[in-house]
Amino acid sequence: MNFKTDTNCSYIEKQIKSLEKLTDEDRPFTRLVFSKKFYEARSWLSEQFNVLGLSISTDEAGNLIGLLKSNNETNKVVIVGSHIDTVPSGGRYDGTAGVVSGLCLIKHIKENNIELPFNLAIYDFLGEELNEWGTSCIGSRGIAGVLNEEILLRQNSSGKILKDEINKIGGNSKLLNKPLPVVKNILACLELHIEQGKVLEERKIDIGVVKSIPSISRFKVIVSGQAGHSGTILMNQRADALVSASKIITFVNKSALKMSKNSNQHFVSTIGKIDVLPNSAAIIPGLVEMTIDLRATSQKSRQEFINTLEEEISSLNNTDTCQINIEDIAFAPFVEMDKELINLFKSSSDSLGFSSNIMDSGAGHDTAQVSRVAPAAMIFIPCKDGLSHCPEEFAEVSDIAKGTAVLYKMIENLAELNVN
Amino acid sequence: MNFKTDTNCSYIEKQIKSLEKLTDEDRPFTRLVFSKKFYEARSWLSEQFNVLGLSISTDEAGNLIGLLKSNNETNKVVIVGSHIDTVPSGGRYDGTAGVVSGLCLIKHIKENNIELPFNLAIYDFLGEELNEWGTSCIGSRGIAGVLNEEILLRQNSSGKILKDEINKIGGNSKLLNKPLPVVKNILACLELHIEQGKVLEERKIDIGVVKSIPSISRFKVIVSGQAGHSGTILMNQRADALVSASKIITFVNKSALKMSKNSNQHFVSTIGKIDVLPNSAAIIPGLVEMTIDLRATSQKSRQEFINTLEEEISSLNNTDTCQINIEDIAFAPFVEMDKELINLFKSSSDSLGFSSNIMDSGAGHDTAQVSRVAPAAMIFIPCKDGLSHCPEEFAEVSDIAKGTAVLYKMIENLAELNVN
Repeated sequence: MNFKTDTNCSYIEKQIKSLEKLTDEDRPFTRLVFSKKFYEARSWLSEQFNVLGLSISTDEAGNLIGLLKSNNETNKVVIVGSHIDTVPSGGRYDGTAGVVSGLCLIKHIKENNIELPFNLAIYDFLGEELNEWGTSCIGSRGIAGVLNEEILLRQNSSGKILKDEINKIGGNSKLLNKPLPVVKNILACLELHIEQGKVLEERKIDIGVVKSIPSISRFKVIVSGQAGHSGTILMNQRADALVSASKIITFVNKSALKMSKNSNQHFVSTIGKIDVLPNSAAIIPGLVEMTIDLRATSQKSRQEFINTLEEEISSLNNTDTCQINIEDIAFAPFVEMDKELINLFKSSSDSLGFSSNIMDSGAGHDTAQVSRVAPAAMIFIPCKDGLSHCPEEFAEVSDIAKGTAVLYKMIENLAELNVN
Repeated sequence: MNFKTDTNCSYIEKQIKSLEKLTDEDRPFTRLVFSKKFYEARSWLSEQFNVLGLSISTDEAGNLIGLLKSNNETNKVVIVGSHIDTVPSGGRYDGTAGVVSGLCLIKHIKENNIELPFNLAIYDFLGEELNEWGTSCIGSRGIAGVLNEEILLRQNSSGKILKDEINKIGGNSKLLNKPLPVVKNILACLELHIEQGKVLEERKIDIGVVKSIPSISRFKVIVSGQAGHSGTILMNQRADALVSASKIITFVNKSALKMSKNSNQHFVSTIGKIDVLPNSAAIIPGLVEMTIDLRATSQKSRQEFINTLEEEISSLNNTDTCQINIEDIAFAPFVEMDKELINLFKSSSDSLGFSSNIMDSGAGHDTAQVSRVAPAAMIFIPCKDGLSHCPEEFAEVSDIAKGTAVLYKMIENLAELNVN
């Protein structure tokens, strides 16, 4: 039974539009994990699972699961899905595209009474985006057993503890100290996602088959100066934390630019978050906290960058009037997707006549976490101008439908391979 | 009747301690103009006026006035006072010292039944500190008739319009388009303030007699880039607004440092407030807004600094991936204090055996605004390590009492000069 992309476009569009309405009103599109709108979106998604006749559950890590049981007596499962949380003022397709694609896929399977030799589960992985607790991929890290106690006990700015939030949404934080039992039954974890880059669009390629996901490191930089009156403290008497922070911002940018030119592999570093205290026009900044985000395919380049950054900070601490400290707050290792699944994705796409490209991801994804404990792979579909994590983010519904067709072909191929 | 500093210390200390309790609890010492705590502090101050038997009123500009009427039939008035609002996370003495000193002065005059040939008014000038409406010295600018319609119609981040707030507190924004009628009756406006610098403390001088107040300019800098995913947008594809903003921060600091070295006059420039959008670790900053605060005694230096800054921005706009715009948001001109009052302050201090120094102010003050329309002058008292606009701000009560004694001597001298 062929998956007809055109007939599924209207369903995909309708579901995307339903989800985009569930945003903080004053800053579209914002649906932060554990927020009111996030809970509303989870209710909406449960309803969609219900309409499709799926069994609904929440696992120990707080992932919301819709399960299509095989008529065969089996524990084996193929996972599809992505995430419905967003960054602040993010987009309508990052994560959402994969979840809606999974809904569409299961709708097709149900409507055509297709029998599968394995269970098929659609996951909303809990809290994929970086959040106030300084971690990302809460649900998929939970599956992989890498949410340690230090992370679980972190508090957000309102004093809420991460593990309490996980438990409140239906998880069980006590059981997260090792990979979840499900991992031994996972045949494949498959994710469709917008590329969030420009490669597919510029080269007019339908499908990107992801071969690796870069390491992601996050560091907190704390610059301690001395607050004071902006009119009376003379220029040569100052310890202005923002001036010193600017030196770090400039250094990180220049150094990453150089590193990305020199190595021919994916290398980016960003300071996206900065908090200045007291942040008032007539007061010299006394304290700056900022987060460095670093993503590298080559671990040698990553280490080289960190070394030069530490040298720069040490040198500034000898000459500057402010004190600069840096600490690790998060790390996800470089991972390669499952080679067999990569090849199967490629041939599934080829057999449908779509153009495809095997490529590295720039962003982190839940699939990277799951791949630490089970076979996993993912595909990208094009998005406009490579924009993501911003309201301008856009993907054509027809491209999501093409990706869904590839996912369906994967399911068919996996079914053939797994008939007892 | 001599003013005995020692007997007045306990009164001053008690009043300072009462006011320091009126702070936003989570960020001492914060009493922003028009905030709940500000209204509470105004009620407290009215009560103190009441205890002293003063007539209480609020003028058109929202200044709270306690008036000690002369037994002579006269409209002439000498003003003392300062302000009770603070910056966010500010100190306990900036403004407060002058208001409490005024209370102490009037208490002494009342208790000793001293007759004055003029009315004596104590002012809490409304909103001296830079506020969310991008202006400072609301009340004293109002007296001088320089709160124009553009400023009065500004909104803060919650959409509150400045003129509505002025009216709510008892002012009349319709009558602020020219100097208030009181100005023609002002014999002298006298302010006591902590120095907010280190000169008096380091040189062990009791009293600073202020001869000038620098021009204060504020500019808003808007850096427009393109938000995007911190993992997928390559280093050479970025328009990172924070990276471009850092170039401006560094330039302003270096340029001001150079200017303050070259000219031998007071010259400082600060970027104390910066807002980054969306300010999230995994998103390239798309927009940065920041405020440049610039204070100069020499107008030549000021203009030279602005010229080089504009050249730098223009040059960055030709080479940088972000677009940088700058606009004026506030200006207060360089002013000199009234020469006769300066001399009278000096001789008043001398006659009490205090050491004194005639000096430039680094900060702006209400007195600078009033001096545009009436004779005005001010004195500084020492503060610890020159710190101000921060919680560490500290002044000795005995130093405030010494300054109050000088103020009282001024009143005596002015009384002698003004006996019909």
